[in-house]
Amino acid sequence: MAELPDKRTAFIDWYLAVVEAARLTDKRYPVKGMNIWTPYGFRARRNLDAVLVREIEATGSEALEFPALIPANEFAKEKEHIKGFDAQVYWVTKGGLSDLDIPLVLRPTSETAIYPIFAVWVRSHRDLPLNVYQIVNVFRYETKTTRPFVRVREIHFFEEHTCQANEEHATERVRSNLEAFRKMAAAFVLPYLPIRRPEWDKFPGAFYSIAFDAPVGGARTLQLGSVHHYRENFSRPYGIRYEAADGSQQYVHQTTFGLSERLLGAIVAVHGDAKGAVFPTAIAPYQVVVIPIPGTESGEGPLKVASEAAERLRRHGARIHLDGGDERPGAKYYRWEAAGVPLRLEVGRREAESRTLTAADRLGRKGPVALDRLEHEVGERLAEFDRALAERAHAAFAASFAVARSLAELAGSTQVRLVAWCGSEACGHQIEAAIDGALLGTPEAPLPIDPGATGACIACGATDGARWALAGQPL
Amino acid sequence: MAELPDKRTAFIDWYLAVVEAARLTDKRYPVKGMNIWTPYGFRARRNLDAVLVREIEATGSEALEFPALIPANEFAKEKEHIKGFDAQVYWVTKGGLSDLDIPLVLRPTSETAIYPIFAVWVRSHRDLPLNVYQIVNVFRYETKTTRPFVRVREIHFFEEHTCQANEEHATERVRSNLEAFRKMAAAFVLPYLPIRRPEWDKFPGAFYSIAFDAPVGGARTLQLGSVHHYRENFSRPYGIRYEAADGSQQYVHQTTFGLSERLLGAIVAVHGDAKGAVFPTAIAPYQVVVIPIPGTESGEGPLKVASEAAERLRRHGARIHLDGGDERPGAKYYRWEAAGVPLRLEVGRREAESRTLTAADRLGRKGPVALDRLEHEVGERLAEFDRALAERAHAAFAASFAVARSLAELAGSTQVRLVAWCGSEACGHQIEAAIDGALLGTPEAPLPIDPGATGACIACGATDGARWALAGQPL
Repeated sequence: MAELPDKRTAFIDWYLAVVEAARLTDKRYPVKGMNIWTPYGFRARRNLDAVLVREIEATGSEALEFPALIPANEFAKEKEHIKGFDAQVYWVTKGGLSDLDIPLVLRPTSETAIYPIFAVWVRSHRDLPLNVYQIVNVFRYETKTTRPFVRVREIHFFEEHTCQANEEHATERVRSNLEAFRKMAAAFVLPYLPIRRPEWDKFPGAFYSIAFDAPVGGARTLQLGSVHHYRENFSRPYGIRYEAADGSQQYVHQTTFGLSERLLGAIVAVHGDAKGAVFPTAIAPYQVVVIPIPGTESGEGPLKVASEAAERLRRHGARIHLDGGDERPGAKYYRWEAAGVPLRLEVGRREAESRTLTAADRLGRKGPVALDRLEHEVGERLAEFDRALAERAHAAFAASFAVARSLAELAGSTQVRLVAWCGSEACGHQIEAAIDGALLGTPEAPLPIDPGATGACIACGATDGARWALAGQPL
Repeated sequence: MAELPDKRTAFIDWYLAVVEAARLTDKRYPVKGMNIWTPYGFRARRNLDAVLVREIEATGSEALEFPALIPANEFAKEKEHIKGFDAQVYWVTKGGLSDLDIPLVLRPTSETAIYPIFAVWVRSHRDLPLNVYQIVNVFRYETKTTRPFVRVREIHFFEEHTCQANEEHATERVRSNLEAFRKMAAAFVLPYLPIRRPEWDKFPGAFYSIAFDAPVGGARTLQLGSVHHYRENFSRPYGIRYEAADGSQQYVHQTTFGLSERLLGAIVAVHGDAKGAVFPTAIAPYQVVVIPIPGTESGEGPLKVASEAAERLRRHGARIHLDGGDERPGAKYYRWEAAGVPLRLEVGRREAESRTLTAADRLGRKGPVALDRLEHEVGERLAEFDRALAERAHAAFAASFAVARSLAELAGSTQVRLVAWCGSEACGHQIEAAIDGALLGTPEAPLPIDPGATGACIACGATDGARWALAGQPL
């Protein structure tokens, strides 16, 4: 069992090694960028999806599912959108032994599948708002280097699509999505900034896009998801209109909210450390691993007590794994630490006799747990673990940002940079070239650090209308 | 709101009309055989999936997920399998703007995606048994007439794949699957027969196939799912071997267990009636619909009591819909009956004042429910509804079978037929021609009726080795 690469100096290598060591995915599938969700990884995904479902349904959105294949003619209706996706879709051209009359696109996202039907569903102002979402896989023919969870060709995807009566209601829906994401991110213990993307980096066809960016070490950032206001950009080509209360015909304003398996990549990237992955309790495939340590004379006591503990915690609703395998205890500790399990319970002969287990959480705190008060004490330790994880993550978040006052300062940045920006595309591209990354956009929340007065645009020196923006290196 | 076609005399028309009236799917999507799961239909599917997950995980199977695209060369490895699916797969031939080097098949089932990786995962007898499943969509280029849930081109699919040490263990896994399906079917309130398919109708590549058939009126049957024993038929071409305890290299024996959205079609087909769909409580998108009936003077009382009742039941864990819309109460009753909701609670002025609601279940039983004892009484009524539904379904099941003692008797059958069959393929095809359907195979459970002694093969007259088999018209 080799040591992991250094997270700070070799981030990508470290990330790939952690995903491997945690056994979240198997990348030996013979199609590039399409990985296998192992049983362990699938459990994490299921827990993650449950958080998304809970929070989005709390806002009145309903689950549905549209087909995966989109006819070429529907796909081509919104000009910017098709331009944005044309080079990265998979085409289904044959069914059985013959060519299809109309080729089908394997959805890269579902606007063009859903909106022709929205045009049929939406008739009257009484049909609005229409808030629906689906969790499906989408497909993108990525040409860049693929990486598990972060950039793949088959993407586990969450997409909400809504129709609103007017621009103002759509803006409200965007706000509601931002708030829902705040709650999701709290469950994932992921600090982030909502950032309005510059014009040249918004979603193809959007009026504006707000993305959620998390710093993941150095100047690197990871986009966790995004919310888009489409105005009438799609409702016009797709003819999604309604009869208003006054009898007039109006186009709906639309919004979307997109998330993906990338959230799992972010959890690995943000919380992981030199020992491997670290899962917050809400997402952990197993919250507790119970390890019996058979003594040399008789292993019965430890195994019996470990089984009893596992069974009681399971009945209490915890996700438990009892590791009764043949490996040495040290190898098991190592393995489940790499897998990111929040809490380990050890049961040796001494523990079995005293009916007091030894608990060790993934952040290194150890202590005894009385079998009599097992459920309560394990609950306390998990809560304490989540608090400590949040504290560590927020400290790292706050330390991730620094102001840059000149383009020269951006070169070789080891933090995400706050820069004063006049808002022009030309200056934006200069900033991007200087940091060898992207101008992420302007924050939609209080800045993580206080940079003082804005001053002049870092690129052109204009003092008029310069605002704080963020620049970094998106993964 | 038109009346539904007659279930007995115009079954297919009736079925299509019920699916439409219940709003389970929207078939206006512009690709034939690919329908939209509406929010209502999606809820039914989610409840159905939850039953599958519960029962299969109780047998120690673990969820995972393989990619949707299979390279052409892997797909072609098992000869019978590729012959069986060749004419009905979708081919992805282009990625972005260029042709793919190796075309990809959109999985019609996942043997050929999974087994190359099983060959990597399985090394030693300690890796066995390997029991895993996935719930994914699969794609088949159906050339026959498509029908919602029953025959579609994008299929919501459950597939378990297992590796066992030898034939006997694989046979045990088949038995375990049959038992798991018995429990699933109990939740769906679906009577069925497990039937061993004749050689010419087994799954492509299988050693044998056992399917679950439900009679759905007349001689018609619907295959609910199937379990297959593959012996070494796939493990040899895919090289899935392990080192046995004695150090020898052995090929694994494999099994699969397949189910699909067809189960939802079966629930509609079996339980539905002249008013529309009827959902068993475990699957019902809404278990209870609460309908306030505002009086002419003041509607406040009924709406307030209805909201209180809905909220209390929701907190109690029931799936509730409060229909506070503008339609007349009669129109709402009609609509939710068509949608198959097990129980309706009506709250008019009288009910609000007496704090006693009127309950009406989907099978027509009515009675008062005291608001004081709401949770308890609604629970009782739902349990009573499920019992009555099961009774009705089992009575219909028992009446669905009759013996045929000659080929002539099979013509124009209005029941599924028990026939004595010598086991030869030639006789099997004669029986199929006579009933204008299929020889379903030999039952793996006690016969639903007692047909007496077997006697001679209905086709060739041979008395030696003739066994009872079933013949019907699969949908």
